[in-house]
Amino acid sequence: MGRKIRLGMIGGGQGAFIGAVHRIAAAIDGQIELVCGAFSSNPEKSKLTGEELFLDPDRVYGSFKEMIEKETALPEDVRMDAVSIVTPNHVHFEPAKLALENGFHVICDKPLSFNTDEAIELEKLVEKTGLVFALTHTYTGYPMVKQAREMVKSGVFGKIRKVVVEYPQGWLSTPLEKTGQTQASWRTDPSKSGKAGSVGDIGTHAENLAETITGLKITELSADVSIFVEGRLLDDDANVLLRFENGAKGILHCSQISAGEENDLNIRVYGEKGGLEWRQLDPNTMLVKWLDKPTEVYRTGLGYMSDIAGANTRTPAGHPEGYLEAFANIYKNFAATILAKVEGKDPDPVQLDFPTVSDGVRGMKFIDAVISSGKNNAAWTKVD
Amino acid sequence: MGRKIRLGMIGGGQGAFIGAVHRIAAAIDGQIELVCGAFSSNPEKSKLTGEELFLDPDRVYGSFKEMIEKETALPEDVRMDAVSIVTPNHVHFEPAKLALENGFHVICDKPLSFNTDEAIELEKLVEKTGLVFALTHTYTGYPMVKQAREMVKSGVFGKIRKVVVEYPQGWLSTPLEKTGQTQASWRTDPSKSGKAGSVGDIGTHAENLAETITGLKITELSADVSIFVEGRLLDDDANVLLRFENGAKGILHCSQISAGEENDLNIRVYGEKGGLEWRQLDPNTMLVKWLDKPTEVYRTGLGYMSDIAGANTRTPAGHPEGYLEAFANIYKNFAATILAKVEGKDPDPVQLDFPTVSDGVRGMKFIDAVISSGKNNAAWTKVD
Amino acid sequence: MGRKIRLGMIGGGQGAFIGAVHRIAAAIDGQIELVCGAFSSNPEKSKLTGEELFLDPDRVYGSFKEMIEKETALPEDVRMDAVSIVTPNHVHFEPAKLALENGFHVICDKPLSFNTDEAIELEKLVEKTGLVFALTHTYTGYPMVKQAREMVKSGVFGKIRKVVVEYPQGWLSTPLEKTGQTQASWRTDPSKSGKAGSVGDIGTHAENLAETITGLKITELSADVSIFVEGRLLDDDANVLLRFENGAKGILHCSQISAGEENDLNIRVYGEKGGLEWRQLDPNTMLVKWLDKPTEVYRTGLGYMSDIAGANTRTPAGHPEGYLEAFANIYKNFAATILAKVEGKDPDPVQLDFPTVSDGVRGMKFIDAVISSGKNNAAWTKVD
Amino acid sequence: MGRKIRLGMIGGGQGAFIGAVHRIAAAIDGQIELVCGAFSSNPEKSKLTGEELFLDPDRVYGSFKEMIEKETALPEDVRMDAVSIVTPNHVHFEPAKLALENGFHVICDKPLSFNTDEAIELEKLVEKTGLVFALTHTYTGYPMVKQAREMVKSGVFGKIRKVVVEYPQGWLSTPLEKTGQTQASWRTDPSKSGKAGSVGDIGTHAENLAETITGLKITELSADVSIFVEGRLLDDDANVLLRFENGAKGILHCSQISAGEENDLNIRVYGEKGGLEWRQLDPNTMLVKWLDKPTEVYRTGLGYMSDIAGANTRTPAGHPEGYLEAFANIYKNFAATILAKVEGKDPDPVQLDFPTVSDGVRGMKFIDAVISSGKNNAAWTKVD
Repeated sequence: MGRKIRLGMIGGGQGAFIGAVHRIAAAIDGQIELVCGAFSSNPEKSKLTGEELFLDPDRVYGSFKEMIEKETALPEDVRMDAVSIVTPNHVHFEPAKLALENGFHVICDKPLSFNTDEAIELEKLVEKTGLVFALTHTYTGYPMVKQAREMVKSGVFGKIRKVVVEYPQGWLSTPLEKTGQTQASWRTDPSKSGKAGSVGDIGTHAENLAETITGLKITELSADVSIFVEGRLLDDDANVLLRFENGAKGILHCSQISAGEENDLNIRVYGEKGGLEWRQLDPNTMLVKWLDKPTEVYRTGLGYMSDIAGANTRTPAGHPEGYLEAFANIYKNFAATILAKVEGKDPDPVQLDFPTVSDGVRGMKFIDAVISSGKNNAAWTKVD
Repeated sequence: MGRKIRLGMIGGGQGAFIGAVHRIAAAIDGQIELVCGAFSSNPEKSKLTGEELFLDPDRVYGSFKEMIEKETALPEDVRMDAVSIVTPNHVHFEPAKLALENGFHVICDKPLSFNTDEAIELEKLVEKTGLVFALTHTYTGYPMVKQAREMVKSGVFGKIRKVVVEYPQGWLSTPLEKTGQTQASWRTDPSKSGKAGSVGDIGTHAENLAETITGLKITELSADVSIFVEGRLLDDDANVLLRFENGAKGILHCSQISAGEENDLNIRVYGEKGGLEWRQLDPNTMLVKWLDKPTEVYRTGLGYMSDIAGANTRTPAGHPEGYLEAFANIYKNFAATILAKVEGKDPDPVQLDFPTVSDGVRGMKFIDAVISSGKNNAAWTKVD
Repeated sequence: MGRKIRLGMIGGGQGAFIGAVHRIAAAIDGQIELVCGAFSSNPEKSKLTGEELFLDPDRVYGSFKEMIEKETALPEDVRMDAVSIVTPNHVHFEPAKLALENGFHVICDKPLSFNTDEAIELEKLVEKTGLVFALTHTYTGYPMVKQAREMVKSGVFGKIRKVVVEYPQGWLSTPLEKTGQTQASWRTDPSKSGKAGSVGDIGTHAENLAETITGLKITELSADVSIFVEGRLLDDDANVLLRFENGAKGILHCSQISAGEENDLNIRVYGEKGGLEWRQLDPNTMLVKWLDKPTEVYRTGLGYMSDIAGANTRTPAGHPEGYLEAFANIYKNFAATILAKVEGKDPDPVQLDFPTVSDGVRGMKFIDAVISSGKNNAAWTKVD
Repeated sequence: MGRKIRLGMIGGGQGAFIGAVHRIAAAIDGQIELVCGAFSSNPEKSKLTGEELFLDPDRVYGSFKEMIEKETALPEDVRMDAVSIVTPNHVHFEPAKLALENGFHVICDKPLSFNTDEAIELEKLVEKTGLVFALTHTYTGYPMVKQAREMVKSGVFGKIRKVVVEYPQGWLSTPLEKTGQTQASWRTDPSKSGKAGSVGDIGTHAENLAETITGLKITELSADVSIFVEGRLLDDDANVLLRFENGAKGILHCSQISAGEENDLNIRVYGEKGGLEWRQLDPNTMLVKWLDKPTEVYRTGLGYMSDIAGANTRTPAGHPEGYLEAFANIYKNFAATILAKVEGKDPDPVQLDFPTVSDGVRGMKFIDAVISSGKNNAAWTKVD
């Protein structure tokens, strides 16, 4: 590789959890340099964050518009290559659109946008511009998830019949948003989150995980969507029946009122000949199950892992990688893809694997279907 | 206690899995003596089984009718006190009815009957006769399940909001019934199993577990019921949304095509203040989860366990009890209850705890609702 | 099989933990009938226990001598076949000797005797009389332990290099014996337990497990033996370096002051090509590890298990068996062996597998070596 | 913080595992900038690595001597603040000494040096210069290890009685060094590793973990040290009895021939009132055990964790951090400490926690004692 990719960040000022995560993820592999940012709509706050990050004060901006405008005016070998959008959902679309229109690659937090129309417009814009667009569905960045996907694709499990994907959390068991806690506040606010609460925040991760690993699209679903905490405005729990394009059936449930659960995203996939089980809390392990042989314990970093899993692993077996490394895999592959474009190289496909704007459109359609089904007493609803 | 309870067995001849389990469960605690049996509708086979069990050949019968008739004629201090019914579902009702009508207590395998009408008739007969009727929902015999029920009842978890109960197996992933395998054959045969396959065989265990632990009735459900193995006549998988009487929501799924799963019944219950998780594969352990404290690992045999859990535990902590002991708890408590009746004693309630004919009626109504919902594209269906 | 084996019990009166366990173990499989007992040296207590067990009062005796004498005088088809010795260690030798001398088979709790001389004498007596002698090293009764032994023997792991066997408990972390608790009192009393505390009570189980699975004898050891609880008279902790006959090295530690541990006997064995790990707390599972393949999870009840493991398993996979069933395997195989002798049959060797008087002699020599090494500042000491 | 700390790296050229790990660890938190390096004693190779890392070619050196000399000559606001030494053991001492003598802070891989004399000389030099010296005992960088240490220190477990610390690996089960594999080659070569193989490479981690968590020094030990793989020149396995200064006893074993084990460093500590268990493979979890209460599952990122654990955690509960973040904690705290020195600030002590040159001296003395004891048939040997 010839140079570092230059990144500008939108959002991620003080108090924001996910902004710091993006910065770590971008920094880990030394392939990306944070060169500028519009960290807050409050210019003072933005400046303060820039200082803490040791950025050139001239490249710390008061708004994403200012940043895109001024960076566009910089010499090609100085200006940022890409923007990272880490704002709440309602501030994804505009900066993403403006960035794409000005020739900047985009890496954006999920869900893709505030609503599906925005998502579709972004998808078209990406297609039109030919720019690189990554969506940080972190969990599919884990090497073991890539391994799972490769194994399903290879057919070792036979035709897939059943999928169980769960995402229980407990942190919103009380009306935390009423305490002013930042994360809780915007996530439960329809004007910032959109039409969905838990379904958008974590249900889309579960959907993305299931569709990614199985390679199958959910065609319709039946969702029992609930608000358990009094006074809350968005769903904090959803139980969903799934049907997949190949006839497989499934269950997805996401919850933020599962008291005592941390962040237990997990999936089980069953085919005619075997199945797999993966839990995000123990991300370097996957159980591979068979009809007539002992269950096998796959572990990252070992010789039998697929090339693509290996390419997304930094440490030898038994030196656990975690959430930040999964996140970093998206950044690393995003950067490699940009570089391939910039330098016209034809890199190893194992380096180009990340969730795209199309995953984001799927996620928005999933939200639409779940929320609509929920309002219709869990009537079967197409995901489309 | 003054004497052993005398038991007669109906079913459980050679090749039957569950008959041997019942015999072990009855024998473990030395409170019950198997004195007679009608082990098969084939008198020769019945005789052979009787020999293997060292029974008096005069008390090995060719049919349950013969057994009930001849035992009734024996002196009171010789004849059996109770019958154990371990036949396939379609041969539960008649022997149970005849036994009750002749004054014998009954312990019966689940599901209670071939259809709900039979179940209701048995419930009435039990009420009328005042006899003891136990249903072997084995899993609620585990001491940790009793502990879970007591903790929920005590209110430590607050109002219950969500229940996830799962029962995945993989043993019917292939058309095993076509090989003539005994267990598979009758369980997939509508003339023997009734209208349900996996739903009756294991789904009812999941339902019983959820209602027992939470103390809440499922009021309605939406079930996506499937047959995955070509040519099979009864369901081998069901994904079910649950609604409970107090407003709690839930998920139940049972499956016999979850390739590589053994018998992984498990439940998670979440209330406003905490929750619990129990897995049958590690039955002496329960995770107790809290909003703001470390998860606690409850273990059978320790001092902090409730009296009722303690009374259903035989060994000190760290000496694992299992499925057979859970089964034996039903027999032990069934026997203690009969003895209390017979001797007019008023025993400690911790000894009288077992699933009854009413649990059986609930199970049959659950089957009705799931199968009906399944035929109606998972329409919401009352459990009633 | 032609008949039940008739058993007489020595010890196991009220308050004794292990007596009840032996009775359950003997009862489970319906092959053994408890016909008489000398449950306590106090005749009143013995009588009371006999009543609780519904025994013929004429066959409840006031001492083991009386029992052996009077049973010997009974007709052959009535008198007991075997005695079960469940007393504290200092009352193993005399009843075992007397029973053997009078032609009764013996099943005896561990450790075999109060000292090694007694053990050797018993071994000679067994050899001379040709009677069956079983020692209840429960843990080698687990089917998965038999599987482990078969796999090591088969050579799949190559030459064994390292063994780690642990037996931590925490129940004697405080001076429990001073409260008068029965189990603690005799186990910490040199006049009843012999020269060793934890080393005899649980260390011998660890030793038996290691030698059984590996098929290798410990040739010498270096033991750091401790008393941590003030005023205690026998060891409550020992850390031991092991050397095996084939050059393998190992570690054994046993402890009753490992606060918070229940009964966590476990073993890891490593050979040139692979290894295994088994934990008593999850006894139906064994991890099988390889140099270049995923770890495999072996589970009891599945088709790939060896014949001998299968023959010692009662339930299908996923229906956990536990401590009582492991114990019952020793009784079942003891009974089958007696029956083979009595009836002159030549049964399947898978039914004849249990720890013998020779295992008991090894255990006593292990105790000698550990205690001697401990007194010599952990000097290397032969086990012989 | 006012600025990034400027780091120069010694070692870590192509093919080196640990160099890349150090670079990631330094990069994660954005507080450190790699500004120069002498990555290989081969100037061409060093140059290549520098290019890959996008370094200024003028600051990529052909030897550590050249680097230290030339960097010293640079203006204060340009030249490196500190060196990171990531070479094999025999090249730790000289660069560390030269760096300290020239006023550079040092962060060095473990074990500290080739022999104990070197270690002691470095310790004196650190004391004399007042410079910051960190040793990358990665595993004590985990937040849960800090939590464990704080809890032991607080006295909640009472006086510590027993410690079991294990470090099994299996990767050297075959003569891998004969294939030319880089990691295996130098680690098994006495001229590069020093007198110890597994004991130096991983045994010192175990020793550091035990002494760090308990706050107790090992006073003497008895070690059975082995070479299992034919032709190997250094130990690949050691079983060690430990005695601690307060009378506690313990076991330490490290192994590189435990076939099938990855990197399973783990520790159990038992006190009079409770104990703890931590496994590196699941680093965000610690079991806390009590005499009379349920075991508690501590998890990083939750509110009940100590301040120092919290300060070394980047993500909320359930977003697993791993080996690289533990490593990064050492770099982060090293940088904060330098900055405190440079800027004369008095930072929060939770930011200043890392293993020092004195931990390194302990490690070297531990190696001496183990190897010496091993040569003396496991005679008790002082660690001093």
